[in-house]
Amino acid sequence: MDTDKLQFAKGDGLLPAIVQEYQSGEILMLAYINEEAWAKTLSTGKAHYWSRSRNKLWLKGESSGHVQLIKEILVDCDEDTVVYKVEQLGGAACHKGYHSCFFRRVDDDAFNIKDKPVFDPAEVYKK
Amino acid sequence: MDTDKLQFAKGDGLLPAIVQEYQSGEILMLAYINEEAWAKTLSTGKAHYWSRSRNKLWLKGESSGHVQLIKEILVDCDEDTVVYKVEQLGGAACHKGYHSCFFRRVDDDAFNIKDKPVFDPAEVYKK
Repeated sequence: MDTDKLQFAKGDGLLPAIVQEYQSGEILMLAYINEEAWAKTLSTGKAHYWSRSRNKLWLKGESSGHVQLIKEILVDCDEDTVVYKVEQLGGAACHKGYHSCFFRRVDDDAFNIKDKPVFDPAEVYKK
Repeated sequence: MDTDKLQFAKGDGLLPAIVQEYQSGEILMLAYINEEAWAKTLSTGKAHYWSRSRNKLWLKGESSGHVQLIKEILVDCDEDTVVYKVEQLGGAACHKGYHSCFFRRVDDDAFNIKDKPVFDPAEVYKK
């Protein structure tokens, strides 16, 4: 049965959010949301996630300034995945300096870089 | 450090695969892969997943005939998510009959259907 609630229990509290650039349709990244990140995203219009590595709520861009402005949100048939369609400020979603985290293509057994970096991470994430 | 291997251990053996229509850039679905599904996808050129509900290897389209032909695969900076760029046979990825599983938009608290179904699931998945 379709509901108007995300099924956080299916992911033990965490569900994947696919981040797609609103203007180009390019997939920028995938991150995870919990109920708090979801509520913050809806209330602020800025993409929030749950950082699995730091184990805390994460406003994307809080360090780099590269905030993601929510333009549209889609939900799947199982209510266990969302798509954030965003305007990516700063021109790059990836902490490695690329426009998209998916900057490598799989060719047989090799992962080959197909994009050029937009910024130098050492400059943006200053010590 | 970048590697040319997917980090299946990060997802306890399962990693998300975002499925994007090659021609349109539309996001069709998200499913999960284990090492076996990943190897089968690479060797056959058809999208394979691990069905979490049925707990088995899943050739997408094995029931409906709506196979996904792999056109390109991208991998993210953390080697824990992939994008399958596919040609979706049969015109629909969603078992509910829609082109995309993301056929609903989130408007405030409501999930509103934005698309029209392509097929009738009762016809395609015959008893």
